[in-house]
Amino acid sequence: MTITDVFESYKNDLLRVETQIQEGLLSRAVLIRQVGNYLLQGGGKRIRPLLLMISANLCGNPGPQAVNMAAMVEFIHTASLLHDDVVDGAETRRGQAAANNLWGNQATVLIGDFLYSKALHDSVKLENQAVLESISFATQTMSEGEVLQLLKTGDPDITEDEYMEIIEAKTAALISSACRIGAILGGMTREKEDALAGYGMDIGRAFQLLDDTLDYTAREDKLGKALGKDLGEGKPTLPLIHLIGNSAPEEAAKIRNIIQEQSQNREDLEYILSLMRERRSAEYAVNRAESYIERAKGRLSVFPASPHKDALYAVADYVVEREM
Amino acid sequence: MTITDVFESYKNDLLRVETQIQEGLLSRAVLIRQVGNYLLQGGGKRIRPLLLMISANLCGNPGPQAVNMAAMVEFIHTASLLHDDVVDGAETRRGQAAANNLWGNQATVLIGDFLYSKALHDSVKLENQAVLESISFATQTMSEGEVLQLLKTGDPDITEDEYMEIIEAKTAALISSACRIGAILGGMTREKEDALAGYGMDIGRAFQLLDDTLDYTAREDKLGKALGKDLGEGKPTLPLIHLIGNSAPEEAAKIRNIIQEQSQNREDLEYILSLMRERRSAEYAVNRAESYIERAKGRLSVFPASPHKDALYAVADYVVEREM
Repeated sequence: MTITDVFESYKNDLLRVETQIQEGLLSRAVLIRQVGNYLLQGGGKRIRPLLLMISANLCGNPGPQAVNMAAMVEFIHTASLLHDDVVDGAETRRGQAAANNLWGNQATVLIGDFLYSKALHDSVKLENQAVLESISFATQTMSEGEVLQLLKTGDPDITEDEYMEIIEAKTAALISSACRIGAILGGMTREKEDALAGYGMDIGRAFQLLDDTLDYTAREDKLGKALGKDLGEGKPTLPLIHLIGNSAPEEAAKIRNIIQEQSQNREDLEYILSLMRERRSAEYAVNRAESYIERAKGRLSVFPASPHKDALYAVADYVVEREM
Repeated sequence: MTITDVFESYKNDLLRVETQIQEGLLSRAVLIRQVGNYLLQGGGKRIRPLLLMISANLCGNPGPQAVNMAAMVEFIHTASLLHDDVVDGAETRRGQAAANNLWGNQATVLIGDFLYSKALHDSVKLENQAVLESISFATQTMSEGEVLQLLKTGDPDITEDEYMEIIEAKTAALISSACRIGAILGGMTREKEDALAGYGMDIGRAFQLLDDTLDYTAREDKLGKALGKDLGEGKPTLPLIHLIGNSAPEEAAKIRNIIQEQSQNREDLEYILSLMRERRSAEYAVNRAESYIERAKGRLSVFPASPHKDALYAVADYVVEREM
């Protein structure tokens, strides 16, 4: 089963989610609808709603509550992207102009707030304490992860553990919550709920590790943004942390300087890229991502074989097979 | 009973709220604690926690849940101030440097997000559906109000009704929720809950009307910020809307131009101020605020006389007696 097969299998579920997303953007503030439509067209792969719907199917309850929460998880994700774009001063997102560039920082901040608060309010309406606990905890964890990441901006001394803590908080927590909510709605045992949440955490970790690696290895036309973006923003990610740990003192000093200066110099980027190829830093990060994917799959052993379980395997594989 | 007496009477409750606020700011991200401490010292009058605690006392349950929610309401309010400061590019807040000036827009956006999400997550932990419904609805309404306000920036054609819709959403909804939550926790009838919520809406309306009027009439050393801030940001508030409606065509054209240009020119401000004095625009807005205060008090008639009810009267009076 490929990722294309998965999207095809859950096409109807995802269409229900899209309808829910569009209804959620109806507001007396016309700007919310405008930015909403832009975000909808902007696409994104809807990987979080997909995971929630597969998980809900696996657990036997892909009803309206699952669809609703799938839309809300995407709202929260989108809100975090909007605020990220403001924080990073992004020019582009997914290959098109970033929202802050089109509507300014003001609207971008406020519409992010609207999406966050709308998502949590709509979640409250489901009157399911465990679902609410999961989604609100994930949202808080995400925002804490963003602050942690900001604190480490321009800091070449970040450790691999600190880096993992950041990506678990800012990325994996919400993906984990999406999977957990499917289990909660299906009334699964705690063991199975935790298994799906753990699966989500692991593929979330792998997803971000790959994303951070692609920032050094992708083809720019495929990535939809310039290479070395993290480097230019002074965000040390795993390939760079690996490189520093595997450099001679004078190399390390130069790299640390590039990070601290948040250099956007093409020559500095080329220097880093060439050292990374030599020290196999991208491979190191990818290997780590692959081992999380293996662990994620292993966690599903508490579930009997089924097409939905196969779909979760396929999503896991897809995460590490994205174009390098 | 004066506002000073009120703060004195609820000193212990407010101290419990302060403790809760400080505990809520404990985070592995040191920046959150730093900004948190700055916000705590920054003061603010804690009018929302005060109202929640008075309401909870009036309704017979000022226990730990009320204290917790009072802190969370203040978190949500503070988060909205942080994002406002980013949106407005504020230089100062409450007479000291604005957070965005000290820590930059990045940290200010992200810590605002943290406070919002922390508040909603901690509220979820109380496992009280009605409380959650109220606070999450208020938060969504606030953010929608902020977007509505942004849409009307630089627009001299805003009507009085549209202006009221904005201030109800961005300011009154949260104050109303604070009052309602006290009633919910006290297990009041729906009638009394709605009475307190209505009281909160009305004093919220009056509070913002006064705030917007003070922007044209206060002494700058008392206001802690420069006069005419709203004018410079192109935010037409009630005194200005009144003025446009009571100007000769050539005056109105000049005023509309000043709004559209978001003029920060001192001469333009003086022109507006002098016309406002002549047309009694501030008095018009204050009268409107006073009538909301009267209505707010009237709503409390469903409660028997008590010191807590007197305290709510005193807070209502205070709202319109702030220094002009």
